[in-house]
This record gives sequence, structure tokens and C-alpha cells, in this order.
Amino acid sequence: MKTSIATVCLSGTLTDKLHACAAAGFDGVEIFEPDLLAAPESPEEIAALAERLGLTLDLYQPLRDVEGVDDAAFSAVMHRAEAKFRLMQRLGMDLVLCCSNVATATIDDDAVSASQLRRLGDLAQGYGIRLAFEALAWGRFIDDYRRAWRVVELADHPAVGVCLDSFHILSRGHDPARIRDIPGDRIFFVQLADAPLLSMDVLSWSRHHRLFPGEGGFDLADFTALVVAAGYRGPWSLEVFNDTFRQTDPGRTALHARRSLRWLEDAVARTDPDATAHRSDIAMLPDSAAPSDIDFVEITAEDTSAVEELLLKLGFTPRGRHRTKAVTLWTAGEARVVLNEQHARGREPQLAAIGFEVDDAEAVDLRLRDLRVPRAYRRTYATEERLNGAVAPDGTAVYWAQAADEGDPAWVAEFEHGEPPQDSTILGVDHISLTQPWQVVEESTLFYMAGFSLSLESRTEVPGPEGLVESRVLTAPGGAIRIPLNVAPAILAERGAAGSASLPQHAAFRCSDVRALARAARTRGFRPLPLPRNYYDDLAARFALADDVLDELQDLHLAYDRDAKGEYLHFYTGTLGEVFLEFVERVHGYAGYGAGTAPVRLVAQRGADSVQE
Amino acid sequence: MKTSIATVCLSGTLTDKLHACAAAGFDGVEIFEPDLLAAPESPEEIAALAERLGLTLDLYQPLRDVEGVDDAAFSAVMHRAEAKFRLMQRLGMDLVLCCSNVATATIDDDAVSASQLRRLGDLAQGYGIRLAFEALAWGRFIDDYRRAWRVVELADHPAVGVCLDSFHILSRGHDPARIRDIPGDRIFFVQLADAPLLSMDVLSWSRHHRLFPGEGGFDLADFTALVVAAGYRGPWSLEVFNDTFRQTDPGRTALHARRSLRWLEDAVARTDPDATAHRSDIAMLPDSAAPSDIDFVEITAEDTSAVEELLLKLGFTPRGRHRTKAVTLWTAGEARVVLNEQHARGREPQLAAIGFEVDDAEAVDLRLRDLRVPRAYRRTYATEERLNGAVAPDGTAVYWAQAADEGDPAWVAEFEHGEPPQDSTILGVDHISLTQPWQVVEESTLFYMAGFSLSLESRTEVPGPEGLVESRVLTAPGGAIRIPLNVAPAILAERGAAGSASLPQHAAFRCSDVRALARAARTRGFRPLPLPRNYYDDLAARFALADDVLDELQDLHLAYDRDAKGEYLHFYTGTLGEVFLEFVERVHGYAGYGAGTAPVRLVAQRGADSVQE
Repeated sequence: MKTSIATVCLSGTLTDKLHACAAAGFDGVEIFEPDLLAAPESPEEIAALAERLGLTLDLYQPLRDVEGVDDAAFSAVMHRAEAKFRLMQRLGMDLVLCCSNVATATIDDDAVSASQLRRLGDLAQGYGIRLAFEALAWGRFIDDYRRAWRVVELADHPAVGVCLDSFHILSRGHDPARIRDIPGDRIFFVQLADAPLLSMDVLSWSRHHRLFPGEGGFDLADFTALVVAAGYRGPWSLEVFNDTFRQTDPGRTALHARRSLRWLEDAVARTDPDATAHRSDIAMLPDSAAPSDIDFVEITAEDTSAVEELLLKLGFTPRGRHRTKAVTLWTAGEARVVLNEQHARGREPQLAAIGFEVDDAEAVDLRLRDLRVPRAYRRTYATEERLNGAVAPDGTAVYWAQAADEGDPAWVAEFEHGEPPQDSTILGVDHISLTQPWQVVEESTLFYMAGFSLSLESRTEVPGPEGLVESRVLTAPGGAIRIPLNVAPAILAERGAAGSASLPQHAAFRCSDVRALARAARTRGFRPLPLPRNYYDDLAARFALADDVLDELQDLHLAYDRDAKGEYLHFYTGTLGEVFLEFVERVHGYAGYGAGTAPVRLVAQRGADSVQE
Repeated sequence: MKTSIATVCLSGTLTDKLHACAAAGFDGVEIFEPDLLAAPESPEEIAALAERLGLTLDLYQPLRDVEGVDDAAFSAVMHRAEAKFRLMQRLGMDLVLCCSNVATATIDDDAVSASQLRRLGDLAQGYGIRLAFEALAWGRFIDDYRRAWRVVELADHPAVGVCLDSFHILSRGHDPARIRDIPGDRIFFVQLADAPLLSMDVLSWSRHHRLFPGEGGFDLADFTALVVAAGYRGPWSLEVFNDTFRQTDPGRTALHARRSLRWLEDAVARTDPDATAHRSDIAMLPDSAAPSDIDFVEITAEDTSAVEELLLKLGFTPRGRHRTKAVTLWTAGEARVVLNEQHARGREPQLAAIGFEVDDAEAVDLRLRDLRVPRAYRRTYATEERLNGAVAPDGTAVYWAQAADEGDPAWVAEFEHGEPPQDSTILGVDHISLTQPWQVVEESTLFYMAGFSLSLESRTEVPGPEGLVESRVLTAPGGAIRIPLNVAPAILAERGAAGSASLPQHAAFRCSDVRALARAARTRGFRPLPLPRNYYDDLAARFALADDVLDELQDLHLAYDRDAKGEYLHFYTGTLGEVFLEFVERVHGYAGYGAGTAPVRLVAQRGADSVQE
């Protein structure tokens, strides 16, 4: 399909925005009027720049408060509209968005609105321009796309059609199925936006919280499939008012936006294969299932020896050094930790990469290329396993490799002079928590959803001693992959920008017997992150735990939680650089992450600063 | 009155919070349970620390989901409650908050809830503890303080009373007047929070957006006066869940919080003088009217010569150099600009201080001391006018001096070797826009409201090329003082934290004929911030301006706006360091600030970077 995006979605000046849209591969743009007004370039210059960049100028927006007014007000509307039509001629544009009246409407009468749109249509036609009439969710009288279509039908003018905006329709809970009743050639334009399902006034929701398709709670695949089924052939255009995207680098946001439309195209093709099968311009992404497991976790540092010491205490086996790189491998059960000292001068330990096991590495490769995800480069030699990788929005390198039928994956053989694997109570990786700069968390969500078919399982907020941490969990079916994405409070982000640490990241390992692991590690000199006595007193108040169970938990500094299904026992290491580890046992299918413990952990980590193991 | 604050209002660990509350002069605190659970200190240590700091532990909070449940659930409640009562004994506490059930209630029957509260009361009494029952705004069955009181009446137990929380009552629009029906000794506790008037689900509103008294839209003076009139004698306690205060320095937030209670005390005394006249613990602040004018604006820089050059072109008169300091004075009409090169090594020009003219400098002095506002120090010599000053939360020094009956204020005579004042089209200072770090904007609002009797006139958002700028305007009656406070988008704040500039600040000067000023300045080589041609085309579309008027506006780079009353003409200088100037003409009582032009200005400033005049 033809793709478009409103300039209001992006930060910067109008010319910044046009360059960003073109670089991201958009076919066209909507010109948001305030962007043009503030631009020093003439309309002719903007038109020429767009042409050079290969961008069509699809929609001028918006003309506000044009109908439902008395005659005196309407003549002012005609004066204003004509000035804008002249401007559009200079821009070489032929479609303008007219929003339903929110401010000046005094006449609640479809016939009056239709007649005024008809007169505007006559005027527009003289300039070769068409009007796309849109019901705003907070329109004074017209706030429903079905009524807007009724008014357009009444206006009965070739230059007057409707614009459908997913936000204005879905935010109000209006059934989009009636879109089928509108002839495709009367739908002059379609604007797409997702949004989280918030309970707040719809104007603020619309102006601040819109998201790109796939990132919120609307069923945009269904909506867009209806538009396609109605016969609409115009651009799929993003109009996303979002406080964050207004601030972030426009080139990056435009790529993110373009990727969301590719995801939507795939979803539409899967939603209505019959309607899209004959459309060569609506294609699915290459099929690929979600990863089946975590292949490895990689920690980089100039000197990884503190991490090695910690892993040894926790029963990991050193499997040797890579035959061509300053990299070592540590394993326990199916958990593999790669310690990398390459290109890490001055770096404290940090979680730098994740490897996924996938069923079809080639399909993932094609899918991520199709989504224009930036590639992670890793030098490999002829005799080594090739690693496919992408750079996630937060900078984490994400690799994927064909899952081994049994035993170690092939790349493990590249590590030499190590010890053989030993039995371990550690089974594998349970989850990997990644700290997201607030600027990229939506992009990261789309990255894992669209690129790796993960689902957004839950959202929560964790109160820490320096503010609320927003947390969302992405999972593969069955919990094979669990990735909590955490957004640090702004104050920590500012400190991060000034060079000090934000929130540490962590990898959590699944164990068959976490008590045994904690005891064994203690005999090897390990000291977990201490949890306070008050925490255990509260466990006693909340859960009917036997005294000896409670004593053992406290003795081992184990945290405890319970849900409808089962129990969760876990402990944390201290923080090394910007990373710590967690060891968890899920009893009887406990599904959470010990959210009740996280605030306690955040305070304990703050007290502990950098703990030596 | 006795003051208290919930530890959840502040960031940091529990001991951080206790120290902050004591330093700010609070009498006591509410212990928010999660703060205690995460603390490594024992309850006895916390109690001992509070005692040493002179803080009473007023309320343990909260016990949740205790009533309206079946018998099986209620025995779990009793188990849990007893563990908490034991804990409270160790803390030496005797009052616990019980919230109305939100999660586990299955029985919608006042008699059942009352009976369960009575049994809890019996249990509590054995520990010397009382229960304060509070209706949460989102309680499953009990969500209204009047119903909570009915249940407490039914429970009829000496250890069971109510807690009144202003947020839970006012957010739902419940009439607080019925508080008078509750005997004062049955009101066991009062929690105070303000909030902006938002239209969103009340739970999110409560958890994220509460404010300290005076900073939001609730009538807390009326609410608190009702509580006082009912005969309540317990603490006035702040419970403010706010995403920002959770992050900011707890010592600073505690002072801010304490100041808000002092403001509230004053407002209550004024709301109901009869009820409070005999209360020696409820006192008004020293009376002082809002400032009558801006006395001066001060710009500091290591080298102020670029500003001098700019002021000369704009027709300011150099009035000389201060007789003891590296400070010069420039005036035009009643506008006085002080250029200060003291203590400014390495500094680019920035707006550093404001002077107010007041009717009673001594009263302002007393008022600000009473509010514990930090003082600004400025060295003065025996023969010089003494300057009273305070440090505003954003770091701006705010001075005040007795208004002169006529002519220059006395301090002007301290400047020597200057030129005599000349006639000028510049009349005085119109407004001063200050950029606020997001952490302090509420504190700043309270500073000007409580300290200088300004009012919050309006709030708006200005879209800039790097995000939305939140703007609120504080004014004195009649517009003698106008101070827009602007909060920069987070991305600029992060850059600011990293050392580069956030949003520039500015002083705007009121003129009798801004066109004449612009023309005269041009002959002296001045070049205003250029506004784009597209902006003028839009003016033509929006307003019926004659062509010659429009041509003149564009020729002089004048911005234009119109409201119901009149017109606004203004132009901007380029930015010098972190400050620029604006010159405005208000025709027929135009009341705004040209909000429509601000987005255009932000883009123009970004394009211009640092413009040379």
C-alpha cells in the first residue's frame, strides 16, 4: 500500500521532517499546517524539496470549524478556506482535511452542514482541490464517522468525501464495521493511530498518547481490513500525536513509524486474506514463529573477572575461551553466559546481547530485513558459526540461531580449553530485564512484537526509592521467552544522560531447587543481596508460612511470592557495574515476576551500591 | 495546627524521609507500609530515630480490604491485622488507616462492614490501637465518606473512627459540607491533597497527579475549615502521590510540602475567621498585597556588552555604573534592566533576578520568613538601599522593595556617571518568562502564590520543534505582574543536565507604539528575530487585515494576535546566551501572550541559534 505520515508525528522543522520521512521510505506526507507556518521556506520550496525527495504531499491539515455555523460565520470560513486553497495550489496539493466543528458550531442540522460542505466543495473544485471531512471524537455535534458520512452523502458533491481516523472511531467505541457501507471512492483519506486503552477525556488522550499501530490497545488490523474491504485505495497515513515522538530524533521516529505500517500491512493480510490475496501491494511478512528459547546472554566489560568469580560461586562451569576472540563461555544447565572483553575499554559490566533459539533462522532474517531493522555486525571467521543479529532500539544486540535438536548449539564448540558441563540445579534463562530509555520503549515493544512475534503480556509500575519504574513484559507463548522492559524515572534518565548509571539490567535463571543453589553458593563464599527483616515479617502477615519455612527464606535471603497457581522463590546477586543476576524457582506454574518484592529490591540495591561478591 | 506527612510523598529510603520531614519542621509522619518493609532498620530503630528527630509516628498505613468479606476471608484479615498491630506496638504507634475494600469485598451491607470493623476494633483495642476507616474514591461498595461515617456509627466502637482524605471526597465531587455532621472526636485522622482538575479515571488521577495544597484545583481551604469546624484536633497530614515528588530530593520536597501547609493554615484562617479566631495554632500569614509593579530585571554574564549593545539599539538609556559593584543600569520608561558582571565567570547572559515593587516591604519580608523561603544574599554597604531577596525554586533571585511614590526608586541613585533618562515608547515590563526545571514547577507556583499573592491565571501547552512546552501564567490583579512559567520538554531537560541549554528565558517590555520602536531600532542597526512569510500568509487568512497593515507587520517582523478585547503586536530579539527580549503593545486590553505565535517563535529561534544583533 501507499504509506504516508503526518508531519506532526515528528520533531524538528518541516524540512527536517521531510528528510526523515523520505529516508524512512514513506511514499508521502500530510502537511500539518503549523509546521508550514513556522517554516522559513516558501510553499514552492517545500513542494520542490518534497518532489526531489520523492515524497507526495497527500493531505493538507486541518481546516477547522467550517460547518454548522450561521451565515456570517460561514463567510469568514469561505475567506479562510480560499486563502488555504491558494496556498495548497502553491504547494501542488489537492486534498485538504476538514474536521467537524468543535468550537463555533451553533446549528445541529445535517442539512446545514451538508450545504456548507457543498459550497466549500464548489470553491475547492475551482482550485482542483477535494475535501476530506472527518468526525472528531469531540466534535460539537458531529462526533461519529457514521454521521460524517451521512453529511457527506447529503452534500453529494464530487469534491467532498470522508476521512476516517482510527483514533476518533475506536476511542469512542464506535463499531467500525459500518465502514463497509461507505463506497471506497468516497473515502478520500485514512489516518491511522493506535493508543493505549486509557480512561480519560478523549481530547487529552488523542493529543498526547497516540501510538503507532501495534503499540496500543486498538484492533487496527480489523479497522484497516475494513477500509481495504470498502475499496479504499489511498494512502495508509499515520497521524500520531505523542508527547515522546514530538521530542525524539525525527529520522529514528520515522523509521519506527514506517516499521509499524509494515507490521500493520502484515496483520491486515492475515486478518482478511481473501480481500488482500489479489492485492500485490498488501503482503505478509515472512512467516516466523516466536523464539523457542534463550540461546545465550552476553555481558561485556573491559575486565569480566568479577563476573567470572560470581558465576563460579553460583555453580556455572567455565567452558573455555573462544578460539579467535577475547570471549569466554560459562554454562549451567541450558543457561549460557558469554563474557566479552572485546571493544569494551573503560566499560563496567553490562548486559550487551541476547541470543534467541529459533526454528527457522532464515525466516527471521528475512522478516527483520523486511522490517528494516538495523543489523548487528559481529566478525566471524570461515570455520565459525555465522551469527545473525539485529540492534534493538535500546542498543542491545539481539542474535538468533537455529535451535539445536539436542545438546549444545554448534557455536559452543568454538570455545576451547574449558571444563566439561556439570550437573546443575540451574535449568536455563527465565527472563531478561532490559532498561529502556523513555525515548525508545515503544519502538522496543514493536521491535520484539513485529520482529520476533512476542506478545505484550502485562504492564505494571514498580515504586522505587527514586520514582516509579514503568515495566511491561514481552513473552513468547508458553513463557519460553520473557523480557521485561523497564523505563527508569526521568531523574535517573537525566543522571544517565549526565554519565552516571540509570537502572541496572539483569538476567534471571530458572532453577529446579533455588534453596539448594543458594546454600551451595554460600559454601563457595557467595553473598546474595540482603533483604530486610521487615520484609519477612510482612511475608508472615500475608502468607500462612510455617516458621521454619520463613526462617529458611530469611537465612538464605530468598524472596517469596504466591499467585493463584503457585509459588515463586528467588534471590538476587549484588550489582556489578550495570548488571546483576537473579535465580528463580517457579513452583506449580507461578506466572509473575515477584512484583511485590521489586520495590524492596530497588531499595536494597540502592543501599548496597556496588556489592562485592 | 499539628503537621504531618505521609512518607510516600517523598523519595529515598525511610530514614532519608524521616530526616527530611524533621528538617522541614513537620511535627509527625504517616508511615507508609512499603517504606517500612523495604527498610533494613528494625521497627524499634525507626521509632527511636523518629523520637530523636522529634517526629511523632501518627498513622500506620494502609490496612486494605478488611471489611465486606465472608467469614473465611475475614479470619485471614484478622490474622493479617494482628501481625500489623504487633508491628505497630514495636513502632510505638496507636493509629492505623483502614481503607474501604476495593479488591475482596463480596458483601454490600453496612451492617456486615460495621460488625467486621467492630471486631477489628476489639482486636486493636487490646494493643492500644485505634482504626481510622476511610472511603476510597474507588471502593468496591463504600466510596463515599458519608457512607464510611455511617458504617463507623454502626460499628459504635471507641477504637473505630473515620479518616477523611480531601482527594477521595473532592475528586468525586462529593459535598464536603456533611463533614459538620461528624463529631470531631470521631474524625481520627485527616489527609490533605490537592490535584489538578483532570478528567480521567480516579485511581490513576490519585496515584500519579496529587499535589500539595494550593497547587491544584480543589478548594482545600473550605474543606479544611469544615474539618476544623467539626472539632477535629488531630494532625493536618499530607498524602500526595505524585510521580515527580517521588523522584525529587526529599529534603527539598519536604520543605515545599511544609510550606503548602502554612499556606493552607493561612487560607483556613481567612475562610472561617470565627472558628479559628480562638485557635492560637491556626494563624494567618502576615498580610501583604501582590506586588504593584516590576522594579527591575537583572541579567548576569561574565561580559554583558552584547546585551548593552542590544539595549542601546532598542532605545534604553545607560544610567551609569553602580558605585561599589560591577553592575550597570539601563532604563526606558519605567523599565529598568540591571546588567551584573559579578560572580559570573564563564557565564553567557542569563536572566538571574527580578525585583518587585511592593506596598509594604516589611510585611513581605515577614511573610516569606514565615513561609521559610530561602533568602537571597546581596552585599550592601551602609549608604546603600538594603535589598530584601528570596531564592525562587528555579534559582532566580526575587527581590522586593518599597514602591516609590513617584519617579525612580531610591536605589537608582546608587548608579553614577550615566545619562539622564530619555523619553521612550517603552513603558515598563510587561511579563517575565522563566524556564522551570520539571522538578520544581509546582514549588515555583506555590512560591509566587503564597509568597507574593499572585494567582494562577491560565495554563497552556506550546508545541515546539522539540516537544511540548507546558506553560502557566502567574499574575497580580490587573496584570501589574505577569510571570509565565515554562517547563521544557524532557529531552531539553536532559540536555540541560548534560550541560547544554534548555529553553531560553525572556523579559517582555510593554510599549505605547511598538511599530515606532521597531522602526527606530532598525535605524540603529537592530535586527529582530525574523518570522517566516508563511506566518503572515496565515495572518491574512485568519484576520481581515488590510494589505498595508500586513505589509508593515511583515516588514518589521512584528507578530500579531487578536482576542475578544483587542490586539497584540510584538517582536522578539535574537537570543543572547540564555536570554532574549520581547517588545509588546497591548491594544484595548488584549489579555494573552500571543500563544499562536509562540510555536513559530520556537522554530525561528532554533533556526537562528545565537543571533547577533
